[in-house]
Amino acid sequence: MYVESPRYTERFGSVRINDIQKVVALDSGLKSEIPPHGAMGVVKISEETIKDFEDRMAIVVPVKDERLKLFEGVISGIPHDCLIIVVSNSQREPVDRFRMERDTLNQMCRYTNRLAYIVHQKDARVAQAVKNAGYDELLDENGVVRNGKAEGMVIGLLMAKLAGKEYVGFVDADNYSPGSILEYVRIYAAGFSMAKSPYTMVRILWHYKPKLSGGTHFRKWGRVSEITNRCFNSLISSRTGFETNIIKTGNAGEHAMSLKLAELLPYASGYAVEPEELVSIFEQFGGTLPAGPAAVVKHGLDLFQIETRNPHLHEDKGTEHLGGMLLVGLSTIYHSPLCDQETKRLILSQLTIQKALKPRQQPPKPHINRPPSEINIREFTKNMEPCLEIYSALYEG
Amino acid sequence: MYVESPRYTERFGSVRINDIQKVVALDSGLKSEIPPHGAMGVVKISEETIKDFEDRMAIVVPVKDERLKLFEGVISGIPHDCLIIVVSNSQREPVDRFRMERDTLNQMCRYTNRLAYIVHQKDARVAQAVKNAGYDELLDENGVVRNGKAEGMVIGLLMAKLAGKEYVGFVDADNYSPGSILEYVRIYAAGFSMAKSPYTMVRILWHYKPKLSGGTHFRKWGRVSEITNRCFNSLISSRTGFETNIIKTGNAGEHAMSLKLAELLPYASGYAVEPEELVSIFEQFGGTLPAGPAAVVKHGLDLFQIETRNPHLHEDKGTEHLGGMLLVGLSTIYHSPLCDQETKRLILSQLTIQKALKPRQQPPKPHINRPPSEINIREFTKNMEPCLEIYSALYEG
Repeated sequence: MYVESPRYTERFGSVRINDIQKVVALDSGLKSEIPPHGAMGVVKISEETIKDFEDRMAIVVPVKDERLKLFEGVISGIPHDCLIIVVSNSQREPVDRFRMERDTLNQMCRYTNRLAYIVHQKDARVAQAVKNAGYDELLDENGVVRNGKAEGMVIGLLMAKLAGKEYVGFVDADNYSPGSILEYVRIYAAGFSMAKSPYTMVRILWHYKPKLSGGTHFRKWGRVSEITNRCFNSLISSRTGFETNIIKTGNAGEHAMSLKLAELLPYASGYAVEPEELVSIFEQFGGTLPAGPAAVVKHGLDLFQIETRNPHLHEDKGTEHLGGMLLVGLSTIYHSPLCDQETKRLILSQLTIQKALKPRQQPPKPHINRPPSEINIREFTKNMEPCLEIYSALYEG
Repeated sequence: MYVESPRYTERFGSVRINDIQKVVALDSGLKSEIPPHGAMGVVKISEETIKDFEDRMAIVVPVKDERLKLFEGVISGIPHDCLIIVVSNSQREPVDRFRMERDTLNQMCRYTNRLAYIVHQKDARVAQAVKNAGYDELLDENGVVRNGKAEGMVIGLLMAKLAGKEYVGFVDADNYSPGSILEYVRIYAAGFSMAKSPYTMVRILWHYKPKLSGGTHFRKWGRVSEITNRCFNSLISSRTGFETNIIKTGNAGEHAMSLKLAELLPYASGYAVEPEELVSIFEQFGGTLPAGPAAVVKHGLDLFQIETRNPHLHEDKGTEHLGGMLLVGLSTIYHSPLCDQETKRLILSQLTIQKALKPRQQPPKPHINRPPSEINIREFTKNMEPCLEIYSALYEG
């Protein structure tokens, strides 16, 4: 894979925010003798390097009643050396869709000789492990894990930790193009290979969205992204005193992190989860007197924003949730202690213009799940480990 | 890459026609210790094997006034170790689109440290080389190479031969998804690695065509494919005496061959080119007394039909050419000496039903360019070789 070298990096406290780097070519071959080493403005990420990081990475796929064809396609695109962790919140009855997902995954793993874990978000054993770990805010009033992709992601990353992985990446199950999934994961690996710090995050920017249909959806989504990014940039500007437009992936659903970083971040419920990760990174490690752990402050934190080569084609779930998405995303910024008055005014005006909020209303506070580092991960692991055998979809050959 | 193993193979004379094999997973990693060796019905094609075949392969991209964004995307998806050969028939004035393509290719090659050739189909030097080689039917009344993708493909494969490649694959320049291009070429490599004979062809079946829009187009295209395949299968049945539906890629635009095979085939003009290749394979090596070269009869010929994982997304050029496509495709079967009366009747009735032909009309004979083996390839090479420097888009770093 060839990726543009990081040409422009902004610093915000200990955070090194890299501007967009485009994927130049999907493959870099085995033969090319003269790696350009960034001299031409392009970094060659060798196949060995990519595979090395893939081997240390878990890919978490949160899924909820997705069409099996799409789910199977997504699984078929995840590089072989990654551990697959599916966290499903699909229905169990009258039709047991979870079981269908498990069967599909099982077949795939048997055919391709690989291991995967699949777990149901509402499983009582998961709830027990979460409870024993003291992670009560992940549970709902019935004592099972709350609904929501964010909570699925948290379960997934805890399982990645349990499986001894160093990196965790997320991909959605509603993607039409297995080749895009392959590219996302290769981008994650490419980003990690460029990181100087063990605390690192890769966020994906979609190349373009074909105007085949869903044109309206993508335009509105583009608007949501644009506003979220503008508010992030306003927040950074207010702290550094310099105008910036460095943040271009505020809402990025496809992203990956080192587990060292993942453990330090809180996870907001619903669509707030991705923006909240950035907010928290800035709260902990932005500013001049970072409040976060000293190790991170020392190493710094590498944030990569990488633009795909493939277009993004996902299941069009309609546009009605985009307003809600904007609201919860911006509310994470609004309620951050970092947020200055000007950015707050910008957020309120944008939410009112987009009719996501009535005049003089305040955005609701998101539900935040504490960083995994603050819970008893060992207790979670101890309780979950015996379940892994049940959960695995394994080559039995 | 994991591909279904060839589970069902039909023989037609010396031709081994393999039934559809699906791509199971796009990547097979570096680590998996127990290659299933087809035991589970799946073949693991290792990264090394794929790269080995890619290194011996040229990918020919015929292009004509395609949008540069799509062209660039296609180039970015071709694996690095393949030689890229672009044969352009784009306009030179008032806007020099050929030059824009050349600049794009040049930039790509410079950035990713690779070599490519780009040649204009109407270039006088190409015409001269073709003329000296005695390949007059490739030229039009003005003494330059005829218009058409097929003629571009022939120039491309002659250049692949000149460059010392053993395999040649074709991809269209109107593809939205670089990841699909990557998959096509990896499928070519996978097919070649499964071949027992040095005479081999890989034809691609698209997984599915998303109903984002262009639904009508794809339904009609599906109809064209279905009819073409039915006529092919009728022709084979008439010779073997057994009903069959083995041919599923009669119109496959994405296909690849060993150059040893490519040299032996004639190339029909226009959309007849892909069906004509199959017709000629059956004429030369089908039947019980194959008329083709003894070496092929001895080794046999491996024909693979492989189904992609990625959906096919290409520029929608409208549906009006589909009738013409059906007509020229079926005319290659109709005018083959192999074609029996029943298949002829089937072809005529289908063409009439689809309004591609009036009642009691005969389909026109396609223009056929002789197999390259019958021309003086050495003369072509001698004339073209000095031009290659001019034509290359090369890393100058």
